[in-house]
Amino acid sequence: MILNKVDMPKDLKNLSMNEMETLADEIRELIIKKVNAIGGHMGPNLGIVEATIALHYVFNFLSDKIVFDVSHQCYPHKILTGRKDGYTNPENYLKYSGYTAPSESEFDLFQVGHTSTSISLATGVAKARDLKGKNHNVIALIGDGSLSGGEAYEGLNNAATLASNIIIVVNDNDMSIAENHGGLYSNLKQLRVTKGRANNNIFKALGFDYYYLEEGNNIKKLIELFEEVKDKNHPIVLHINTKKGKGLSVAEVNKEAFHWILPGTLDLKNDEEFTITEDYTSVTCDFIKRKINEDKTVIAINAGTPGIFGFDKSFRKKVGNQYTDVGIAEEHAIAYASGLAKYGAKPIFAVMSSFVQRTYDQLSQDLCLNNSPITMLVYWGGISGADATHLCVFDIPLISNIPNMVYLAPTTKEEHLAMLEFSLKQTKHPIAIRIPTCELVSTGKKEFFDHIDINKFKVTEQGEKIAIIGLGSFYWLGKQVKEELKEKLGINATLINPRTITGVDEELLENLKENHEIVITLEDGILDGGFGEKVTRFYGASPMKVLNFGAKKEFADSVPLEELYNRYHLTKELIVEDIKSIL
Amino acid sequence: MILNKVDMPKDLKNLSMNEMETLADEIRELIIKKVNAIGGHMGPNLGIVEATIALHYVFNFLSDKIVFDVSHQCYPHKILTGRKDGYTNPENYLKYSGYTAPSESEFDLFQVGHTSTSISLATGVAKARDLKGKNHNVIALIGDGSLSGGEAYEGLNNAATLASNIIIVVNDNDMSIAENHGGLYSNLKQLRVTKGRANNNIFKALGFDYYYLEEGNNIKKLIELFEEVKDKNHPIVLHINTKKGKGLSVAEVNKEAFHWILPGTLDLKNDEEFTITEDYTSVTCDFIKRKINEDKTVIAINAGTPGIFGFDKSFRKKVGNQYTDVGIAEEHAIAYASGLAKYGAKPIFAVMSSFVQRTYDQLSQDLCLNNSPITMLVYWGGISGADATHLCVFDIPLISNIPNMVYLAPTTKEEHLAMLEFSLKQTKHPIAIRIPTCELVSTGKKEFFDHIDINKFKVTEQGEKIAIIGLGSFYWLGKQVKEELKEKLGINATLINPRTITGVDEELLENLKENHEIVITLEDGILDGGFGEKVTRFYGASPMKVLNFGAKKEFADSVPLEELYNRYHLTKELIVEDIKSIL
Repeated sequence: MILNKVDMPKDLKNLSMNEMETLADEIRELIIKKVNAIGGHMGPNLGIVEATIALHYVFNFLSDKIVFDVSHQCYPHKILTGRKDGYTNPENYLKYSGYTAPSESEFDLFQVGHTSTSISLATGVAKARDLKGKNHNVIALIGDGSLSGGEAYEGLNNAATLASNIIIVVNDNDMSIAENHGGLYSNLKQLRVTKGRANNNIFKALGFDYYYLEEGNNIKKLIELFEEVKDKNHPIVLHINTKKGKGLSVAEVNKEAFHWILPGTLDLKNDEEFTITEDYTSVTCDFIKRKINEDKTVIAINAGTPGIFGFDKSFRKKVGNQYTDVGIAEEHAIAYASGLAKYGAKPIFAVMSSFVQRTYDQLSQDLCLNNSPITMLVYWGGISGADATHLCVFDIPLISNIPNMVYLAPTTKEEHLAMLEFSLKQTKHPIAIRIPTCELVSTGKKEFFDHIDINKFKVTEQGEKIAIIGLGSFYWLGKQVKEELKEKLGINATLINPRTITGVDEELLENLKENHEIVITLEDGILDGGFGEKVTRFYGASPMKVLNFGAKKEFADSVPLEELYNRYHLTKELIVEDIKSIL
Repeated sequence: MILNKVDMPKDLKNLSMNEMETLADEIRELIIKKVNAIGGHMGPNLGIVEATIALHYVFNFLSDKIVFDVSHQCYPHKILTGRKDGYTNPENYLKYSGYTAPSESEFDLFQVGHTSTSISLATGVAKARDLKGKNHNVIALIGDGSLSGGEAYEGLNNAATLASNIIIVVNDNDMSIAENHGGLYSNLKQLRVTKGRANNNIFKALGFDYYYLEEGNNIKKLIELFEEVKDKNHPIVLHINTKKGKGLSVAEVNKEAFHWILPGTLDLKNDEEFTITEDYTSVTCDFIKRKINEDKTVIAINAGTPGIFGFDKSFRKKVGNQYTDVGIAEEHAIAYASGLAKYGAKPIFAVMSSFVQRTYDQLSQDLCLNNSPITMLVYWGGISGADATHLCVFDIPLISNIPNMVYLAPTTKEEHLAMLEFSLKQTKHPIAIRIPTCELVSTGKKEFFDHIDINKFKVTEQGEKIAIIGLGSFYWLGKQVKEELKEKLGINATLINPRTITGVDEELLENLKENHEIVITLEDGILDGGFGEKVTRFYGASPMKVLNFGAKKEFADSVPLEELYNRYHLTKELIVEDIKSIL
């Protein structure tokens, strides 16, 4: 194996061109095997192997600096920078994160995972270099899909004014996670078709020196290109055309499905699929389909990650004009939805908790200040063992402290459907719904939700002494706690489903004072700025004892869920222990 | 007066071209008089008078729709849409807001005040029109300065894909609030110089049909242009070159100073200036100047509003390369600062509380996750009588619930300088400082701040029974409350300066239990998700009674400060009343 000769980037210098090509195949093979074993980003990494080799061949990233966008395409980079053991040895498959990590290597400058950040970060690095009187190359590597985000554009706008070296490599594989959407992409297409010679050129318009390479998977040509631009003292865009999923035919064809895959995907037989049972995502998607069918003003919107919500190709084909993928552009998505709602349409914006963070001001100004009645569906909100770049624990403080917003937390399928119906019917407020992350619970009993239910908590099991307020998915943890209290302490606690995150039911909380001494709140997110603190504030001047359970304010990085539950005291046993200590 | 003949836009149809030109002069005169009387946006409104008349002449905005960007240039629009009494009669000068307001008129679609939103909002309106099978024009009116924001670009990217009518009027006066910055502006300049014929054209690159008009203050030409594009069924950009401050020579020359002016500015004698006494802004600016002078890696950054921070022309000239105005692009500003800090420079990013909202995800991911040691200075944070679009009460929940962030709240000049010194010296954390909004207090005694002081509250006056925790500017309200408690109830309360917003001093709070029954927290911002709730959560299971004082979660719209203080119980008298009720 050629890879045996390569531990660090400098070793590439000893290889012939043929050997580097073989190396690319070897790296590709390692990636396919590992990603199929533990899941991860397949297509993006297979497409960037040659460019990564060429970059490390031409530049010296101990002095030169490179910033990856999203960094989901950093696997070849990790293999070439002292971390190949995480790919060659299955026992080490979990040793390194799927994103760049400064804690792992001096070759990784930033920990990133969100989109469209690389140009801005690299511009900062380049400016610092200039201020310090240094002299080396600074590179941002960004995919075409990531260019739809406003932060990328803001970065381009400032980078173009640097009177010094910055090289932005645009890795254009003609795909975002799904297809690209937006005017930018017609321009990238023109540029590909004309081999970079189209008259319209957004990069030149912004002031960049522009280079195009059609053979973005050709190591020799890539090396020639990088050599040519190395050490130039002005802002440059290198537009390279690569093949997403290269070398794995099924991934080359099914680019969207193989952007990120689950473990074992390649082992499925041809006609086999992962069994999909009914869950909150499928129930929600079915609801949306039905509403789109019934009402031509209902429109589904997402920002670049349709698959997560079940908006797959057949869905997209079916709903046609009543669907917009705005690109990875959450800010626009919210303002766009507000505009739609203000003018009488019924937008449903689906977004992951981690990415709703990308649009705070639009939620506040474009949406809530104008009280536009949109429906925003927040997916994956809750504590998880995810990478620190993709935590989903911050959406409650983010969303729920904005005036006019109504943020709902259903606990069952029927309650969720009732809230969805209500949200589409009403025209008074922007409404967000936190899709439960737990297993689907169905009571089989139709539920209703209306304006009168906003900020009205629901006592589901009346008891005394201790009241448990379990929010959304954690309502079920609350139920476990109730049973544990009964069993261990013989206490018949009251169980409450608050339903609304954005406000407290003052009347109900006041009434609890009569025959309760302790109130506990359970939320699947960080405590700071969250739901429980509002309950505690209500009881601030009263003798009621309140305990808030939720996540600690921290960037927990790929910590197993069970460990986090223990750390945060989110098991029925630990919660009852804590209650005992104040009884 | 021609204006006497015009109450509503339809009345324009009865005017000759000459009369419309006279009308423009009359409107300009009204604006100059009113803005000089009560303050407001001068330059932007003077430049857009002709275009506004032409728009209302050609389009019918009862069926057609127009969305203003920032909407600080809507005065002529208000005068022409039934609200001229707010300009002709000084008694009505405060009758209408300085921004578009749906509550005032059906001609105003959205309440806006932040930048770069119009294209996204208008795209939503246009899409809703299509879904509803309607057929009319949708227009976004956006200034060149606003085009630097990512939301504008995300909007352009999606708007370009509409297979229907949308007209984006780019009002290019070659100025943001101050000079424009970024690659985009070299392109706009090329386009102006070539009268729209430059080869590089960002709008064409994004897929728009593009028109250019050099005489953007010529009503006749504007009408011709609008007539030409009216009812076209594809996305169009109209690039018009207007003169900021037109008709007021001093505003035409001093574009930055006359973007927004204080009352009475025109009445100043030539060599007279508003007296500037030392305040927190001047002290901060002096500090920055000194540091830039001492250390070539210190760099000041702002996003489009330099004047607010004292970064005036002479400042900018002096600091040269150690300053970046990134354009109105807060997202980029934070990532850029993170890149700078990661590579050893010392960035100081100055931002208004209301606009820090535009960069939450970058604070979380680009900055705090990477623990880059930047200094962020947050100005104007606190309750005010501002327009709902410019409230500054949300920064504490926004910033302080992000892990790794250290948010500090100084109470005196000396403490502020100590925190600034500390922030630039240390390399462990991103540090934000909330510049006090109250009058400058100087003790004359040098202070120090170090890592050990983070999350350590400071007892400034030891007492008993009641502890008052007064954050930042509201420390001084706390001092008043202490005196009132002494006077009215004979209680010698403890006064505490918490200094850090992002955490609580658990040891100190624990110790308070010994001889205190009540703790009150005072913060100049909303209670929900804020500082006080963290203190309350700490005491949740203890007998300590806690009262949190701060703003209610609402978009208070131009409500006088005194009224808000009464509403929120933020006077010493009301606070002591509340304390009495739980004693």
